[in-house]
Amino acid sequence: MSAQFAQLSTVTSPRAHAAPSAPASLANQRSVRRVEFEPKYGGGRRGVEVSYLWHGVPDAPTVIVQGGISADRDVLTVGGDERPGWWQALVGEGMAIDLRSCRVLSIDWLTPHDLGDVAAVSTEDQANALSALVDALGIGRVAAFVGSSYGAMVALAFAALHPGQLDKLVVLAGAHRAHPMSTALRSVQRGIVRLGCDSGRLDEALGLARQLAMTTYRGSEEFSRRFAGAPEFRGDRFRFPVEDYLEQSGRRFVERFDAERFLALSESIDLHDVAPERIPTPATLVGFPSDRLVPLADLCELQRRLRGPATLEVVESPYGHDGFLKETEQLAPLLREALR
Amino acid sequence: MSAQFAQLSTVTSPRAHAAPSAPASLANQRSVRRVEFEPKYGGGRRGVEVSYLWHGVPDAPTVIVQGGISADRDVLTVGGDERPGWWQALVGEGMAIDLRSCRVLSIDWLTPHDLGDVAAVSTEDQANALSALVDALGIGRVAAFVGSSYGAMVALAFAALHPGQLDKLVVLAGAHRAHPMSTALRSVQRGIVRLGCDSGRLDEALGLARQLAMTTYRGSEEFSRRFAGAPEFRGDRFRFPVEDYLEQSGRRFVERFDAERFLALSESIDLHDVAPERIPTPATLVGFPSDRLVPLADLCELQRRLRGPATLEVVESPYGHDGFLKETEQLAPLLREALR
Repeated sequence: MSAQFAQLSTVTSPRAHAAPSAPASLANQRSVRRVEFEPKYGGGRRGVEVSYLWHGVPDAPTVIVQGGISADRDVLTVGGDERPGWWQALVGEGMAIDLRSCRVLSIDWLTPHDLGDVAAVSTEDQANALSALVDALGIGRVAAFVGSSYGAMVALAFAALHPGQLDKLVVLAGAHRAHPMSTALRSVQRGIVRLGCDSGRLDEALGLARQLAMTTYRGSEEFSRRFAGAPEFRGDRFRFPVEDYLEQSGRRFVERFDAERFLALSESIDLHDVAPERIPTPATLVGFPSDRLVPLADLCELQRRLRGPATLEVVESPYGHDGFLKETEQLAPLLREALR
Repeated sequence: MSAQFAQLSTVTSPRAHAAPSAPASLANQRSVRRVEFEPKYGGGRRGVEVSYLWHGVPDAPTVIVQGGISADRDVLTVGGDERPGWWQALVGEGMAIDLRSCRVLSIDWLTPHDLGDVAAVSTEDQANALSALVDALGIGRVAAFVGSSYGAMVALAFAALHPGQLDKLVVLAGAHRAHPMSTALRSVQRGIVRLGCDSGRLDEALGLARQLAMTTYRGSEEFSRRFAGAPEFRGDRFRFPVEDYLEQSGRRFVERFDAERFLALSESIDLHDVAPERIPTPATLVGFPSDRLVPLADLCELQRRLRGPATLEVVESPYGHDGFLKETEQLAPLLREALR
């Protein structure tokens, strides 16, 4: 093993996850690597720093796992007492993405700031960064790219640009292009944030944009069940149960995210456009009928147009787009099957 | 005919609408009347000025027609060269709501400002104003209340509060309560407008709120067909086809509407809650499967719970909630049948 393992730290897996047959230790890199590629929107080839997590059995096949625009490389927590990773219920020893038999690789999304002088960041840029990282880490071929939401779009861009590096594509709640209605809803979100920038009310604006985003992430049926209560007159006006929930979601988001990053990654979703006909990689697609942001019809079209063999798994859920985060029990067997 | 016709002006019907069997003249009142009732949210009984249009054959049965929160009393244009009314294609001589055999009554929506010292305006207030106006005009019984969107909610409130004044209820794209997901989307719209109030950017904020509203009024399929084109880099960023459309809709709305009125009527929709079991009036309900704002399931529930006989007509349309404005050819026979 050469330079790429310089930052390797061997950690003992947390007891809660240890299964009888688990290996005693997993290899863990949580690091930054400089890679080179040419961003889509201008400026020519350059070096870009990519923050990544690479975790699992040292010599096992690598599986790339990427989530939505607000997800980071911490798919799972590696230490004992951190906050859980965003897919903690599906990635780990003995879990659906089993760290006894594979090694997970994930990056923090790049922004135009990371790329230097560019007008926007594309899903192709994220895919090229991952591809260069795979080379830099000496991985060679990736066993699978499991992408959800924006991560699904990047997975498709990766498969279109680097089919020779990828054995299997697993795409959840994402398609070859954004639906125009979803673009409409994101363009309003970006308008809110720009209004906040221009008027010095950035936190409130970012919070409101997140509130709107939440309505697109969650299911109508779920909202109907949770927020059917009567409004209360508080302060100077009526407050509706769903309003309190949205405001809290907005505040939490503002604490952990910034406006520039939000604008860039939101726009990146809407710029995404990959021809499925270019993708030969065998694919498993997973869609949620209640997903208001990525209609199931778009996944049907994707399946029909992919060049390689593709199955579409339809998962019933009240949770809409966020089904990829919430339906872990239904997703686990589908992921196991897709990664077999 | 007594005092209530003091402001009557007899107009010759425009030639374009004249059918061979049409009467030579229609009675037209476009006027203001002071009525008394007690608003729901405080302050006791008071006099309230109601702006109304009452147009048609003088002695024909009266049909109340009310639309969405941005519609006014001008259901149809009465003079020759004005802009068309909001339901011009369905109301007129020989039209589905036939002014040769009925007389249309419609009011401008009341706001808290019109009601004096109240915390909010309710659909019951609008219904009480209409009921008092019906009495003041000496109408006695109304042949039908045809309400769309917010107007549908007011129609249900009217039927619940004044069943003895009403023979038939026709409800399009509206239900006994707002869906919590729709409340969520409207609460974000109101948040945008309040942010604009607080930061001195009211026009931009109201325009953005309208943009968001437009995404809820129109159909996903329609957007998919109209706005599938590629973005253009203009000014300092990419612009998506749907974004140009939304911005134009927002600007047009700001020219004709004000923030205070928008906040009050938007909130009034979410405060609406009428028990269908209270309504004995025979009803025809019309729903659009593509309506994202008023799910068809809510109209199914309404039909099941109404005390009187009710039919539900399902109209396929790519236009979502705005089907009540756009699907005039499909709606015409349904309205004729309902009003027979």
